[in-house]
Amino acid sequence: MIQQVPHLQSLFSNYLSSHQFDQAPVGLYEPINYILSLGGKRIRPVLLLMGCNLFNDEIENALPASYAVEIFHNFSLLHDDIMDEAPLRRGQPTVHIKYNQSTGILSGDVMLVYAYEYLLQVGSSNIKNIIKIFNKVAIEVCEGQQYDMDFETRSNVSIAEYLKMIEQKTAVLLAGSLKMGALIGGATEEDANHLYEFGRNIGIAFQLQDDILDTFGDPEKFGKRVGGDIVQNKKTFLVIKALEIGNELKRAELNMLMNNTPQDEELKIEKVKSIFNELQVREKSEELMESYLIKAFEYLDKVKVEESRKEPLRNLSNQLMGREV
Amino acid sequence: MIQQVPHLQSLFSNYLSSHQFDQAPVGLYEPINYILSLGGKRIRPVLLLMGCNLFNDEIENALPASYAVEIFHNFSLLHDDIMDEAPLRRGQPTVHIKYNQSTGILSGDVMLVYAYEYLLQVGSSNIKNIIKIFNKVAIEVCEGQQYDMDFETRSNVSIAEYLKMIEQKTAVLLAGSLKMGALIGGATEEDANHLYEFGRNIGIAFQLQDDILDTFGDPEKFGKRVGGDIVQNKKTFLVIKALEIGNELKRAELNMLMNNTPQDEELKIEKVKSIFNELQVREKSEELMESYLIKAFEYLDKVKVEESRKEPLRNLSNQLMGREV
Repeated sequence: MIQQVPHLQSLFSNYLSSHQFDQAPVGLYEPINYILSLGGKRIRPVLLLMGCNLFNDEIENALPASYAVEIFHNFSLLHDDIMDEAPLRRGQPTVHIKYNQSTGILSGDVMLVYAYEYLLQVGSSNIKNIIKIFNKVAIEVCEGQQYDMDFETRSNVSIAEYLKMIEQKTAVLLAGSLKMGALIGGATEEDANHLYEFGRNIGIAFQLQDDILDTFGDPEKFGKRVGGDIVQNKKTFLVIKALEIGNELKRAELNMLMNNTPQDEELKIEKVKSIFNELQVREKSEELMESYLIKAFEYLDKVKVEESRKEPLRNLSNQLMGREV
Repeated sequence: MIQQVPHLQSLFSNYLSSHQFDQAPVGLYEPINYILSLGGKRIRPVLLLMGCNLFNDEIENALPASYAVEIFHNFSLLHDDIMDEAPLRRGQPTVHIKYNQSTGILSGDVMLVYAYEYLLQVGSSNIKNIIKIFNKVAIEVCEGQQYDMDFETRSNVSIAEYLKMIEQKTAVLLAGSLKMGALIGGATEEDANHLYEFGRNIGIAFQLQDDILDTFGDPEKFGKRVGGDIVQNKKTFLVIKALEIGNELKRAELNMLMNNTPQDEELKIEKVKSIFNELQVREKSEELMESYLIKAFEYLDKVKVEESRKEPLRNLSNQLMGREV
């Protein structure tokens, strides 16, 4: 549960529950209800509602669009899981495992269409603008996934390329959700763009933090296996930075570790972590994360509404970054 | 080449050529240019342009929407080919074979988004209505594909279910293309709906004819292998009708033929065809096809424009049904 905005979360959950996919053919629609029921924090729809609420006390209007972004997000998870051959999602079997791959592809496809169907329900005169923002985000999410896959087989990924990839794959959907919500709530284009930049910078900071926690997190608090990225040889910021600043010996050592399937995974994790520690890439990642957070809040400052209305967004951001509020 | 409307085909081809996907990442966009370059008759975009032209001499406005339906059609072919594990499309390797499966899924996904991006370029005040029609069609195409897959493992598919499936999988996109074109051209809702019904009925007739030609066509004129549906045990109208009207013995014989992988495919084709001949299912299919054609032209009659403007649509339909005009 997101402590800051339980009322928005439950407003959204109620909307989702009353808009299940109960039509025929069951083979197409049951997997959609399944993946939507796996939960998650519903951050994107909540951000969309918060973007609206910043400018407007009436947020019911924004519910269909908030559902659209949650459907889109789950569509992209569903198809990504097929591409990544992932067996589990939030501890449950992925759709292509529980049903089959064709179902996964086709149910995902129709989800994307339904995202537009819900977007169309936005009772706003600038519906065309809203759909344009959604399209731009959706295209960037696909491009980000492509870059992510491309990077798997490339050894020379730069920091700039990595940051662009996580921006597209993760941050723009958060940013777009805030912007669409703001416009539905009646924001000016300028304020909506400030919120977009707030979301984009916060999103990059989240992802950098996720990379750090995956390697250095507390196993009791972190939901996934600590060190998972290292075992899977994922080219996170930590790896790319280490390859950028390490001397020839360190680079060779890290490349060797990442190109071999180890007999002892824990030993591999330890060895990679010790290279990270020597090169202080965790600290460098935290510095960069901080700079994105600062930029994010600068954009939030620029939004022309009473400061008190911004508190929930500030608090939510801090909570999601694991900071006490 | 569609003889009736070469100018519309070349107008569309020029638009397509000047709107290729040349952006990065290449891994995402090159497969889109590839599948769009495989050609085909471009029937859907041409129908959309014809729907517009019926009411308006100015058809340039309809080009982005015509591209949207062609992109959508190719998106659905791309994903269907993955689901059907098809190695070839129009004599060339399918996208998932030429590239890989993940590319096929992801390039298809972004194509669907671009279909909406081009739809948004429609310079029409009823853009919301146009997107609604497109959504309805897109959802039905996915549902039709799901029913088609469901039918593979069912032995009790009814004629009504089969007709519904081909309507969704094939006919509604033709119908929707005509309707969207008509609305862009300034048609009344009533005329646009008549055109939708014209396209829906023509589409079902096309598919019934396709089933007939697959089994009874002239090998020299038919593009694919004659008897292909029989070899693949596809539940076409011919099969379903034969199972409906045959006596117990014939049904058992046909079911046996369809449940076994034959050593001699040509012999299997001959045996199945002889059952079809005995039960006169070809004639029954032709009668049904005729009735859909008649209904289609009745709807075209109702459209309130000069008869001379309807000639190209009549001629095209007859040409596509293989009739001299």
